[in-house]
Amino acid sequence: MTITAAVSGASGYAGGEVLRLLANHPEIEIGAITAHSSAGSRLGELQPHLLPLADREIVETTPENLAGHDVVFLALPHGASAEVAAALPEDTLVIDAGADHRLEDPEAWFRFYRSEHAGTWPYGLPELLLGPAEAGTAGKQREKLRGARRIAVPGCYPTSVLLALTPGFAAGLLEPDDVVIVSASGTSGAGKSVKPNLLGSEVMGSMSPYGVGGGHRHTPEMEQGLSNAAGEPVTVSFTPTLAPMSRGILTTATARVKPRAAGDVAATLRAAWESAYDDEQFVHLLRPGQWPATQMVAGSNNAVIQLAYDEHAGRVIVSSAIDNLTKGTAGGAVQSMNIALGLPEGAGLNQLGVAP
Amino acid sequence: MTITAAVSGASGYAGGEVLRLLANHPEIEIGAITAHSSAGSRLGELQPHLLPLADREIVETTPENLAGHDVVFLALPHGASAEVAAALPEDTLVIDAGADHRLEDPEAWFRFYRSEHAGTWPYGLPELLLGPAEAGTAGKQREKLRGARRIAVPGCYPTSVLLALTPGFAAGLLEPDDVVIVSASGTSGAGKSVKPNLLGSEVMGSMSPYGVGGGHRHTPEMEQGLSNAAGEPVTVSFTPTLAPMSRGILTTATARVKPRAAGDVAATLRAAWESAYDDEQFVHLLRPGQWPATQMVAGSNNAVIQLAYDEHAGRVIVSSAIDNLTKGTAGGAVQSMNIALGLPEGAGLNQLGVAP
Amino acid sequence: MTITAAVSGASGYAGGEVLRLLANHPEIEIGAITAHSSAGSRLGELQPHLLPLADREIVETTPENLAGHDVVFLALPHGASAEVAAALPEDTLVIDAGADHRLEDPEAWFRFYRSEHAGTWPYGLPELLLGPAEAGTAGKQREKLRGARRIAVPGCYPTSVLLALTPGFAAGLLEPDDVVIVSASGTSGAGKSVKPNLLGSEVMGSMSPYGVGGGHRHTPEMEQGLSNAAGEPVTVSFTPTLAPMSRGILTTATARVKPRAAGDVAATLRAAWESAYDDEQFVHLLRPGQWPATQMVAGSNNAVIQLAYDEHAGRVIVSSAIDNLTKGTAGGAVQSMNIALGLPEGAGLNQLGVAP
Amino acid sequence: MTITAAVSGASGYAGGEVLRLLANHPEIEIGAITAHSSAGSRLGELQPHLLPLADREIVETTPENLAGHDVVFLALPHGASAEVAAALPEDTLVIDAGADHRLEDPEAWFRFYRSEHAGTWPYGLPELLLGPAEAGTAGKQREKLRGARRIAVPGCYPTSVLLALTPGFAAGLLEPDDVVIVSASGTSGAGKSVKPNLLGSEVMGSMSPYGVGGGHRHTPEMEQGLSNAAGEPVTVSFTPTLAPMSRGILTTATARVKPRAAGDVAATLRAAWESAYDDEQFVHLLRPGQWPATQMVAGSNNAVIQLAYDEHAGRVIVSSAIDNLTKGTAGGAVQSMNIALGLPEGAGLNQLGVAP
Repeated sequence: MTITAAVSGASGYAGGEVLRLLANHPEIEIGAITAHSSAGSRLGELQPHLLPLADREIVETTPENLAGHDVVFLALPHGASAEVAAALPEDTLVIDAGADHRLEDPEAWFRFYRSEHAGTWPYGLPELLLGPAEAGTAGKQREKLRGARRIAVPGCYPTSVLLALTPGFAAGLLEPDDVVIVSASGTSGAGKSVKPNLLGSEVMGSMSPYGVGGGHRHTPEMEQGLSNAAGEPVTVSFTPTLAPMSRGILTTATARVKPRAAGDVAATLRAAWESAYDDEQFVHLLRPGQWPATQMVAGSNNAVIQLAYDEHAGRVIVSSAIDNLTKGTAGGAVQSMNIALGLPEGAGLNQLGVAP
Repeated sequence: MTITAAVSGASGYAGGEVLRLLANHPEIEIGAITAHSSAGSRLGELQPHLLPLADREIVETTPENLAGHDVVFLALPHGASAEVAAALPEDTLVIDAGADHRLEDPEAWFRFYRSEHAGTWPYGLPELLLGPAEAGTAGKQREKLRGARRIAVPGCYPTSVLLALTPGFAAGLLEPDDVVIVSASGTSGAGKSVKPNLLGSEVMGSMSPYGVGGGHRHTPEMEQGLSNAAGEPVTVSFTPTLAPMSRGILTTATARVKPRAAGDVAATLRAAWESAYDDEQFVHLLRPGQWPATQMVAGSNNAVIQLAYDEHAGRVIVSSAIDNLTKGTAGGAVQSMNIALGLPEGAGLNQLGVAP
Repeated sequence: MTITAAVSGASGYAGGEVLRLLANHPEIEIGAITAHSSAGSRLGELQPHLLPLADREIVETTPENLAGHDVVFLALPHGASAEVAAALPEDTLVIDAGADHRLEDPEAWFRFYRSEHAGTWPYGLPELLLGPAEAGTAGKQREKLRGARRIAVPGCYPTSVLLALTPGFAAGLLEPDDVVIVSASGTSGAGKSVKPNLLGSEVMGSMSPYGVGGGHRHTPEMEQGLSNAAGEPVTVSFTPTLAPMSRGILTTATARVKPRAAGDVAATLRAAWESAYDDEQFVHLLRPGQWPATQMVAGSNNAVIQLAYDEHAGRVIVSSAIDNLTKGTAGGAVQSMNIALGLPEGAGLNQLGVAP
Repeated sequence: MTITAAVSGASGYAGGEVLRLLANHPEIEIGAITAHSSAGSRLGELQPHLLPLADREIVETTPENLAGHDVVFLALPHGASAEVAAALPEDTLVIDAGADHRLEDPEAWFRFYRSEHAGTWPYGLPELLLGPAEAGTAGKQREKLRGARRIAVPGCYPTSVLLALTPGFAAGLLEPDDVVIVSASGTSGAGKSVKPNLLGSEVMGSMSPYGVGGGHRHTPEMEQGLSNAAGEPVTVSFTPTLAPMSRGILTTATARVKPRAAGDVAATLRAAWESAYDDEQFVHLLRPGQWPATQMVAGSNNAVIQLAYDEHAGRVIVSSAIDNLTKGTAGGAVQSMNIALGLPEGAGLNQLGVAP
């Protein structure tokens, strides 16, 4: 039995990537392709790389057009998805690539978005450790996605950060109040909106920070996941930077190591990450000495991770690389869909990066 | 029944791309992975983007290691493949990504390579028009690949040029002595050899020509294919340039239109290209007004083409974009393998580019 | 005595580059800095690389604000400069970086711009050969700029093309009806307008053509200069492409060599280019074997040129590289200003590229 | 009276940049241009962007060739400069762009370089604050450079880090044991050595960390400068990353703010940075809301800085951008030379970036 999927926001980068993955998915038939200002166009005019879908018409994003599918992907501006989802049947799997349903704390939502919180949906990061390892039963987020009919896709930065740091927090190895994260993102992370600072002439040959000083909306999402894993409140200092590349996030995340991590600290740390990801097909702890590069994961659903213990500074430094559009958005969405629907978790997804 | 394939030259870009495609191929099991100076390493050290193959050992490129497979891919320096192929059974499918067996004319080979010609193998460009349309029976190269056990993969530039221009020559619409081609290639086309001019610091922000004045070894290969299609000798002026990107070839090919192309010349021209590629799954004439960009085809096996008639100059200008490593090398090789073995022509290949 | 200069269009790339050069000019004092939609801003908000001018206020582009300067640079949309210039005194040096006053033929203007021709101003390409060498007296454009009070800055593509090909035409060595030009430009050539296809995500990793088929507005300007040099009408086929870099134009220009170029054709050709540029400080014929790269000239006022004779195809292939914003726009403007005002021709200009 | 300068290591990026700046310097005449493996070549073969020097011969790096100049620039592998300097007269100004003479602590040298320390030379960072502000008399490094005849040019990363953080440490506002720094560097920082990971194909579209975990040799240099400014030992965690651009360093540096920074912490912090750099011509605290980008400073000797107070995390985040080859190497060297020789500090240097 074929599963049908509708994709909204199809003119943007997130929507385009969802379509790219679904077009390769053995179990999915792509139904309605919707957008707003470009409704009426052929997809080939806006996403010319999706050649097999070039002649498909883009229709308006309305509940009517999204209805009648088994799965609906929402890649909409924040604030828009709750209403659309409310108009869809409860047994339709709705996957929101936007921010609306990620946060558990309505106050954190309000502080960063200045609007009423739309509610919390299961968080689409299957590999996320849910609590301290010593508690023994917390497990991973994967379990919460089975059978789900509403899923909130994580932000791209939080995906890279949570995969990088939760093993250490869940293992009780890291201090909660001294986490510093600097991420470099490709420009597609800023979307397809035409702002002067995103022009090719401006970004090529240039690195720049933005949203510095705690203001980035992804910060509470990071703290939520890290705090859950740690079993205590975690505070992060997060600085995103824009890098001269189209795709990819490289995160450098550091935290102070707790004194309890005695003995061979480096080995203790490595063991925590190994045990967290040994069974994962899309999250890979690289062999010692090899460091992540965003090119390794381009176009794939992989996250690659490496860590080092800086004894001098008393800190662990964790580096993670993902493709912001794949594992960071559309790949995470499809992977979560697979789990929710009971399909093979990797269906339609790729473990092979496109490099060089 | 599983088909086994060995891949030589696995440490380079061509070999890496063959492995990437084979790892996604539903009918192929990857056997020996061979190289020369990096024999003994794990593949993950050299091709870290191929994560599922990371632990596979690279063995020395020897006839013994390549023997016992149904298919052997050779990605070796020119001059090396004939000897290796001679040591393999005749019923092994040997696919040479190098230049050794592409040219039909031993003199042309000698002029450009200064060594004895190793013989001609069926040319791995299935969509190539083999002769003038008026002759009626020439057909395409695809037929010559069915059941073949030796295949010469075309050069990356010739692939982009032949797909761009053969429809016009086969239709008798273009003058044979006034063809000018300028191509821009990503740096992976120059391979993984560490030369100063290929350093990132040198290539970023820079465009430069090379091999100017007829010296490029791909020129006779272009003339061979165009002359066959035209049924008369075609001479080309070809200038390759190096562009600041990793992958992709954009070819701008122009030729003077013959006077016989009377009436609505633009429509006559378009019709020739349409009829050549209407049934092809990997070669796409874009809708009028849309022009190729290498990003459209990144990581895919597609070629995208557009043409315009410049009435003022009396020329047709054809633009084609391919991924030099996929359709231009490894994708063409796998597609030809599929045809030779009677598999679905598109098995393991992708029509979806990775963009942006 | 200090010379004062006003710069309009100061928020764009051309205006910014004029300001960069003038701020380094020993004889110029920058007066009014004007723009339209960003009037009222500080320059530092729009051109943060011009730190010494960061606190200067941008005022509205009006005749009043531009009045009272010795020199006025216009970097305005086409169609706007004639009116502004008319409001300025005749003895003010007005330098128009736009297209309005470049063409000598009103019909050519109308065909490409669909508006009334605003008249022809002296063409700001000092090194341009004005006629056939055999005529003996044509000389270079430099002479026409001395004392001029109205100057039309050449387009960036025409600058690269005219410098590449006029020596051959002036020497009577090239056929006039078979000129094919393919240029690759950095994205700053398209200006600072926010169009989706100029987003960093779209241009990085991508090459694409545009304006194919004779439609580019720079074509008549090329034909004008080449025809003048040849003493007969020259027709060109010109295809511009967009390259993934911020600055730079690499032009590949080819023409069929006339039969009269007998004997050692390569030497005859080289001699023509040598004699054309031997005395020039900003146009350099590279030593044999060395080919232009846009990185060589970044930020400088240089043009670098190399040529090869392709005996096989009977064509000369000339490669030229310039910085589109410097020699291709603002540098050419300042160089022309220097000549018009009797200053040292190289004042404020740089012969040293910023590389790598 | 003209001052003569010899430049060793002229085939590399640092040496090339020294030559670029000296060629623009009004008081300097370039004497011997030396290198090792490329001795005998013309400079134009190796540094084609330095057109006015293209015909200059590169001679072997020997004391004889370097002798007889007023200034000698050394851009040599570490370990080589002490011997060369010893062979030069004491009144020759020797400026070492290498690491040999930067560190004050021989043990720190030995720990990172495993060789005997060559001694400490005055540190070529004029704007460096030398001690706590409360002490009142420490001043800046500039004073120590006047009349100096041996100067150690800072590392490029330390330049960006020390300019970013010393104002806060000198003002006593920052905790010394919780400093986290992540820098992104263009590939020219890794030099012109041909390593596979520096190939254009590898670096374009990719971000990657290296030397993670305290191993980077620039760490002790950072700690030395910060500790001096703070008047107490400062420990840093430093992670460098490689960015897909040729030039530029963007540093994100964070430190915990001391409780004593009470009241309006943000204003107190900003005041410290303002007072440190208000009089500097090459170090610029950007206006509030504007953040550094490496493009702003390309080719210039500027450092641009911005800071934010992250109240939530209790940290200050400082962002700085420099051109690694100019302010980070050759520009710092020339600026220090100017001070040592009593020339205007900015002679031959540029405050205008080349952007876009």
